[in-house]
Amino acid sequence: MKYFEDVVIGTRTELGSYTFDAESIKAFARKYDPQAFHMDEEAAARSHFGKLVASGWHTAAVSMRLVVDGTRRANANQKGDILKSGPSPGVRDVRWHKPVYVGDTISYATEIVELREVSRPGWGLMLTKSTGTNQHGEIVYSAQGAVFVERRPK
Amino acid sequence: MKYFEDVVIGTRTELGSYTFDAESIKAFARKYDPQAFHMDEEAAARSHFGKLVASGWHTAAVSMRLVVDGTRRANANQKGDILKSGPSPGVRDVRWHKPVYVGDTISYATEIVELREVSRPGWGLMLTKSTGTNQHGEIVYSAQGAVFVERRPK
Repeated sequence: MKYFEDVVIGTRTELGSYTFDAESIKAFARKYDPQAFHMDEEAAARSHFGKLVASGWHTAAVSMRLVVDGTRRANANQKGDILKSGPSPGVRDVRWHKPVYVGDTISYATEIVELREVSRPGWGLMLTKSTGTNQHGEIVYSAQGAVFVERRPK
Repeated sequence: MKYFEDVVIGTRTELGSYTFDAESIKAFARKYDPQAFHMDEEAAARSHFGKLVASGWHTAAVSMRLVVDGTRRANANQKGDILKSGPSPGVRDVRWHKPVYVGDTISYATEIVELREVSRPGWGLMLTKSTGTNQHGEIVYSAQGAVFVERRPK
């Protein structure tokens, strides 16, 4: 197990990539963001986007998914370096820098930027910066995350 | 149509409510946040949450959905007060103040807090604060949104 005391500021993890195909863009939009430019190619063509684009919340949700998948992979490897993380109080500065168009492949990464002592007994707060970068090397998404991490038992 | 020039700071809109049942919590989690406490009642009971909880990203996505639904209702009413809004550059300070437990009904609202002149020709930036409040009157979710709004054609 890895605890708050083991976390190193500056550690960067590549989380893998995700291709936003039309089906997944529309499936997310139907449930959570049914605007025409996320749902219908023709309506999107007439919009300021010019083609089908993913909901910004979809871009963010995929980032979460890849974090969870990454943690699972580490778990499966049983390297003993699983971070004991808990709930998240929130996310700052979620930015949708550029549209994510249908067919775009976004590569996600996360970096540990700060460790903060908190009053919650047994926990510390880990601050991260996550990014999503498209196949042209452009950052399309970024967010400053926060998550409570268990302290090493005394 | 309503344009940037028509927007009034302080305007508050009640967006309606959403009940997070087990099926919807698990359906979101399976796709975007497959952590055990969002997926499985027994695992959730053993976690620090004590029972099944919604993914924070699910709580946020539902807020987006209710904004879109509210805009549609205004559209259907054809009152001529549809705001010509465009893309969003991002969201600040997404906060998950308290867990959203299975069965909780969250009432969402949004308030216009700032109007900002921007360099993008033909558009202004509208800043909002959105909140989600549970059936006990506790704020569980808040976020500071931003969206570009069209200026009145000259």
